[in-house]
Amino acid sequence: MIRVTIWNEYWHEQTNDEVKKVYPEGIHEHLKKVLGDEEDFEITTAWLEKDEEHGLSEEVLNNTDVLMWWGHMRHHEVKDEVVERIMNRVIFGGMGLIAMHSAHYSKIFKKLMGAPCSLHWRAYNEKARVWTVAPLHPIAQGVPLEFPLESEEMYGEYFSIPKPDDIVFITWYKGGNVFRGGCTFTRGAGKIFYFHPGHETCPSFYNENIIKILKNAVRWATPGIIPDFEGGHFKEPLEPEVTDRPPILDDMKK
Amino acid sequence: MIRVTIWNEYWHEQTNDEVKKVYPEGIHEHLKKVLGDEEDFEITTAWLEKDEEHGLSEEVLNNTDVLMWWGHMRHHEVKDEVVERIMNRVIFGGMGLIAMHSAHYSKIFKKLMGAPCSLHWRAYNEKARVWTVAPLHPIAQGVPLEFPLESEEMYGEYFSIPKPDDIVFITWYKGGNVFRGGCTFTRGAGKIFYFHPGHETCPSFYNENIIKILKNAVRWATPGIIPDFEGGHFKEPLEPEVTDRPPILDDMKK
Amino acid sequence: MIRVTIWNEYWHEQTNDEVKKVYPEGIHEHLKKVLGDEEDFEITTAWLEKDEEHGLSEEVLNNTDVLMWWGHMRHHEVKDEVVERIMNRVIFGGMGLIAMHSAHYSKIFKKLMGAPCSLHWRAYNEKARVWTVAPLHPIAQGVPLEFPLESEEMYGEYFSIPKPDDIVFITWYKGGNVFRGGCTFTRGAGKIFYFHPGHETCPSFYNENIIKILKNAVRWATPGIIPDFEGGHFKEPLEPEVTDRPPILDDMKK
Amino acid sequence: MIRVTIWNEYWHEQTNDEVKKVYPEGIHEHLKKVLGDEEDFEITTAWLEKDEEHGLSEEVLNNTDVLMWWGHMRHHEVKDEVVERIMNRVIFGGMGLIAMHSAHYSKIFKKLMGAPCSLHWRAYNEKARVWTVAPLHPIAQGVPLEFPLESEEMYGEYFSIPKPDDIVFITWYKGGNVFRGGCTFTRGAGKIFYFHPGHETCPSFYNENIIKILKNAVRWATPGIIPDFEGGHFKEPLEPEVTDRPPILDDMKK
Repeated sequence: MIRVTIWNEYWHEQTNDEVKKVYPEGIHEHLKKVLGDEEDFEITTAWLEKDEEHGLSEEVLNNTDVLMWWGHMRHHEVKDEVVERIMNRVIFGGMGLIAMHSAHYSKIFKKLMGAPCSLHWRAYNEKARVWTVAPLHPIAQGVPLEFPLESEEMYGEYFSIPKPDDIVFITWYKGGNVFRGGCTFTRGAGKIFYFHPGHETCPSFYNENIIKILKNAVRWATPGIIPDFEGGHFKEPLEPEVTDRPPILDDMKK
Repeated sequence: MIRVTIWNEYWHEQTNDEVKKVYPEGIHEHLKKVLGDEEDFEITTAWLEKDEEHGLSEEVLNNTDVLMWWGHMRHHEVKDEVVERIMNRVIFGGMGLIAMHSAHYSKIFKKLMGAPCSLHWRAYNEKARVWTVAPLHPIAQGVPLEFPLESEEMYGEYFSIPKPDDIVFITWYKGGNVFRGGCTFTRGAGKIFYFHPGHETCPSFYNENIIKILKNAVRWATPGIIPDFEGGHFKEPLEPEVTDRPPILDDMKK
Repeated sequence: MIRVTIWNEYWHEQTNDEVKKVYPEGIHEHLKKVLGDEEDFEITTAWLEKDEEHGLSEEVLNNTDVLMWWGHMRHHEVKDEVVERIMNRVIFGGMGLIAMHSAHYSKIFKKLMGAPCSLHWRAYNEKARVWTVAPLHPIAQGVPLEFPLESEEMYGEYFSIPKPDDIVFITWYKGGNVFRGGCTFTRGAGKIFYFHPGHETCPSFYNENIIKILKNAVRWATPGIIPDFEGGHFKEPLEPEVTDRPPILDDMKK
Repeated sequence: MIRVTIWNEYWHEQTNDEVKKVYPEGIHEHLKKVLGDEEDFEITTAWLEKDEEHGLSEEVLNNTDVLMWWGHMRHHEVKDEVVERIMNRVIFGGMGLIAMHSAHYSKIFKKLMGAPCSLHWRAYNEKARVWTVAPLHPIAQGVPLEFPLESEEMYGEYFSIPKPDDIVFITWYKGGNVFRGGCTFTRGAGKIFYFHPGHETCPSFYNENIIKILKNAVRWATPGIIPDFEGGHFKEPLEPEVTDRPPILDDMKK
């Protein structure tokens, strides 16, 4: 089983009528439903006000293989100690992270990137087209080389991220913009996928290709099998092969 | 002129006789001397106890094109607000950063990487060989495809960094280890080079190839010319090309 | 089922007594045996003198998902039309290619790389250590972060290949060399893995970690599922979104 | 001085009135003029029918630092021995190559890529916008983060090239397409830049930003300084560091 935790800010859906119509039970519950037909996904949800730790206790995270994150206007309310906890679980524990839409500005994504993560945007929705530029990538399997989104918020270049490990998708917008909107990264033992669709007033999470991509991303981001690796450290120092003087080995487990 | 600030922890050189012999005036002053024959380098130095801001005031940083960093045992004493200031100057102002030796564990390098930055090491010095694996990279210009270091501290894989933009050098150690010890990264408007040689008891900073590499790295890391770019943001929002409804343009200057 | 064809020059094993002792039935038959316990691998073998097409007819290739290649001294005897056929099957048909040891100099590998593929070497065997530097890569799953090879031919830098998509393994040699010896590439619809161990007088293909890596590589290199993609072409031209004059669409199926 | 040779098919300009109006002296002569104000560029031109070797004799190539290439309909008429000669000069001699527009399908570009190099296209011109996605790259220096082209032929994804070393520019087209249209590669000692603008009926080579990019690309692609490197080979074999038996060194100069 792949243990997935879907985290949502869950604010627009409770306060904005337009959003309620699109995602009446919240984006997290909607995603749980559309991803839930994968038999080996075990999905739970969490949100900003679920409890004092935003539903992300040590125990929850230790039992999460892949964390999906949707946040927008209340990034600053996510507690720093919870962010630190997620960070450690990603880089030392190998938990995957899927950052969706405005999560480019979440504390956890920015902390993992070490970069501004700024982008160009327009506050209204327009026609977009998602183009696959790494068709051999696991996240692109079964996804057409191009598919349209009738309405999505424009997020465009320049996107101030580190050079991605792979750019899987580039999105075209009718208004004249392009966006490296589907990108992968690795940090320590963890895999990260950023994917831009999912504005709260747009039905992108109903789109079969978006759903396919998110499912692929969950599988891709699931922690791997790495012997002798505990958070990037060797369990035992290696005996040096050839030494010039008596070995005074001292593995700091840095 | 390229304005270089060389920062050094400057502790071993004041407290350890073995180190004093190698770098009597401190690693920073030594580096200033060996890099100083480049006529267009304007070099100043700073260190942990220089003043309350470790010699890295807002003014100093705003007048620095490339910051070189050597730190080892007192990373934790570098104040968080100074680290934040350096971070901003790198990612928004385009200041280059050259992280040397144990600086892989400095607060600023870890913050920019978003990764553990852990590695494998042995606490004694051994024969090493530096191999160039990206000979066309600007930092490798004029550097042999291989050169030896008679004595350097072993820093080896697995090095838990993000996938580098370029791996320029890989180092061999007699004891059986390899290390991606010369790597480049970009974060926002800034360029970063990590280079492993420079243990305080080793004369690596006297090595002509090491000096050549550091000079090349300074030139490479010097901020570029990017019109319309202020910390990764466009100065003005772009008028959309084709719109479906009246443009309600709103550039957040995210 | 993953249909694997293992191709071997099969010359040393028939002419050199030392080699016969290590691989009495040929490297291809040995690999077939050690990889054959994977239940979903369907393995056949081919060799230079199997028939007039080196055992690589159109039909054989069209029924191959992953081609493994071992060649050394008789690269030049592989017919150009067979090489062209393999090339087309990789870049248009998505067949994976695993190039082993001296296959860095095979016609097919050089043709896919477009680069010299030269390297530094020594004509005797020595202690080596394989270091994993991309532990999250599918090919590294279940492989230790380091494992030794008691005896392998030294292949070292500078290895004149295009920048790999991923460097999965770097090998250390006792004699002072390092080698980016486990690298991935993509070309058209096909995935390529180069892996250096496997000198004909060394028992590397008996090593459990090498076997694990080759099995992983076969799975990784298996063709993916790409809708609308026939050798990199769209099946149908896309209707343009917005046009300035009547569309005179003409998809060249380039 | 940087010795630039601009090669042009030079056919459309002689046979098509529409093209003649845009580039009356040929694209090669036009480029020579607009790049020629760089005082350290020494520019010569060559074309398909200049002489029996298309103006690219051994002597011309040996005196070329950067070769710029424009070809479209007569790729197949370029002689294979000339292509082989260019290939060798790039990968062993370090000559830079700038492939413009339809040169994605030139023999030399395909040979260097080892990939289909196919793309999606429409046979008419439309509004385009060039977006910089690697603003720190030398080729992007002084270039705005975005600039429009009023009319350019659509070349779009999926572009079946190897993963580029760097994607510097991504182009948006009004018709709904995106294109990784400004990409860098390295092959042996040579640097390669592909850049998509330059359809024969479009005035792109009059655009100041395009001209700036081409000038930057020429400087970037100029061969570097690599000691001990002759076409990727070490001049002398290295003495092994530690040997298990008497060294029988044999450097094949592969």
